Amino acid sequence: MTKVCVFDSGIGGLTVVKSLLRTFPDWHYIYLGDTARLPYGNKSPQTIRSYLEQCLGYLEQFDPDVYVVACNSASTQAHEKEWKGRPLFNVIDPVIDEVIQKTQNNKVGVIATRATVNSRIFSHKINTKNPNIAVIEQACPLFVPLAEEGWIDDPITNLIAYRYLTPLRAEKCDTVVLGCTHYPILVNSVKKALSNQVCLISSGEALAQLMQNHFQVSKSPHCENHFIPKLDVLVTDLSPNISIMIQLILGKECNVPIKWVTL
Amino acid sequence: MTKVCVFDSGIGGLTVVKSLLRTFPDWHYIYLGDTARLPYGNKSPQTIRSYLEQCLGYLEQFDPDVYVVACNSASTQAHEKEWKGRPLFNVIDPVIDEVIQKTQNNKVGVIATRATVNSRIFSHKINTKNPNIAVIEQACPLFVPLAEEGWIDDPITNLIAYRYLTPLRAEKCDTVVLGCTHYPILVNSVKKALSNQVCLISSGEALAQLMQNHFQVSKSPHCENHFIPKLDVLVTDLSPNISIMIQLILGKECNVPIKWVTL
Repeated sequence: MTKVCVFDSGIGGLTVVKSLLRTFPDWHYIYLGDTARLPYGNKSPQTIRSYLEQCLGYLEQFDPDVYVVACNSASTQAHEKEWKGRPLFNVIDPVIDEVIQKTQNNKVGVIATRATVNSRIFSHKINTKNPNIAVIEQACPLFVPLAEEGWIDDPITNLIAYRYLTPLRAEKCDTVVLGCTHYPILVNSVKKALSNQVCLISSGEALAQLMQNHFQVSKSPHCENHFIPKLDVLVTDLSPNISIMIQLILGKECNVPIKWVTL
Repeated sequence: MTKVCVFDSGIGGLTVVKSLLRTFPDWHYIYLGDTARLPYGNKSPQTIRSYLEQCLGYLEQFDPDVYVVACNSASTQAHEKEWKGRPLFNVIDPVIDEVIQKTQNNKVGVIATRATVNSRIFSHKINTKNPNIAVIEQACPLFVPLAEEGWIDDPITNLIAYRYLTPLRAEKCDTVVLGCTHYPILVNSVKKALSNQVCLISSGEALAQLMQNHFQVSKSPHCENHFIPKLDVLVTDLSPNISIMIQLILGKECNVPIKWVTL
């Protein structure tokens, strides 16, 4: 059985696991959320890099076949393609080719944390492959706390999304990247703030597609309703709202084991 | 010169320093913000206690005359009155007596982080001294990110405050504690969401009063406009928005030295 270690600053990276499960339902997932130090999105590149190394170092003990950095802020500092001789995937690279294929008017929006936007990594990677694409990056620091508060499909969240996305509407972006793994939780508010024609790209789906090509497997049928994934969740801090967040992402019936670990 | 070490999870505790400066303008303030791991407000009691001990341990090297825990979430785990033989003040105890004196209808509201509300420390301490007071505690997890986003006197912040404070209006609380050191930044939105007659109590002012009694000093005249405090700010992570936050709290002309430290 293929074993994959997935790392995120918190619980949002489970949206990536959810996408991977649709393509690789039989894999064994070990998920590490660094909840004792979350969020990474407002922190400096140096601090994020040191947290990334510490978390990947911790995961080595499970001897996985593949590592996934399921956090965009951490992915800005994950430049290597391998970790201890095993493939290392981040959630930024898979999005780049998809964006370039999808845009018709060469105007792409990226919404992400402050750390990801400040890194300018999306602009840099897209423009390295196609310098004619205008990339408008917008930090949305309130989206993670709104998702964690559970204010989904909420008028206040809609208002905040409308304000944050103003520059993307003004520039008439036809393709928008959800550049933080929490953001799929708020996808309805993001859609309301943009024109219906805008194509939204989420890291999880793009990564699943890239990994499907890499491992040359055919796509499995969608999980059945009562499918129980082989998923262990490790967290560096266990506060009461973590299991609520896990159920919000994976569904109420998904009762995964959660273990509190020290790095 | 009296030397005071002030510790907070982030930068919000500078609202407490601002209050202390009005009473003790001649003191030397060494402020430690644990910005690499902020916020504490959604984390567990065990993790918060271990961070508190690590931060106070770090500050011992400055051999201060007094320690201040200027963070309500950390204060829930700061039960001792001394640290290494020096007085240790938290920001919860000073508020308790003031609340009991001020309320006329025995209905008190407390707004704070999730960690502080879950600890029930305000209810417990108030009811130990006066069991007839009803204490309504309300977590406001979006207030810290709203303050950090700089959405002050903003219609969206007003709407969020109005929603959070609904139970306090319904119970007709006549006294409300701002139970997080970031909240004075949003005081106008909180005021708009409550009746004009409600008395707001902030930790910083209450602590300054308690310390004035403790050290038996008479109150100094208010700082002049161009007063330059002796204040060193140490942070465990230095991201670009930290100096913006410092200026938001202390004023644009306040140019304090900021040093990045490792605990």
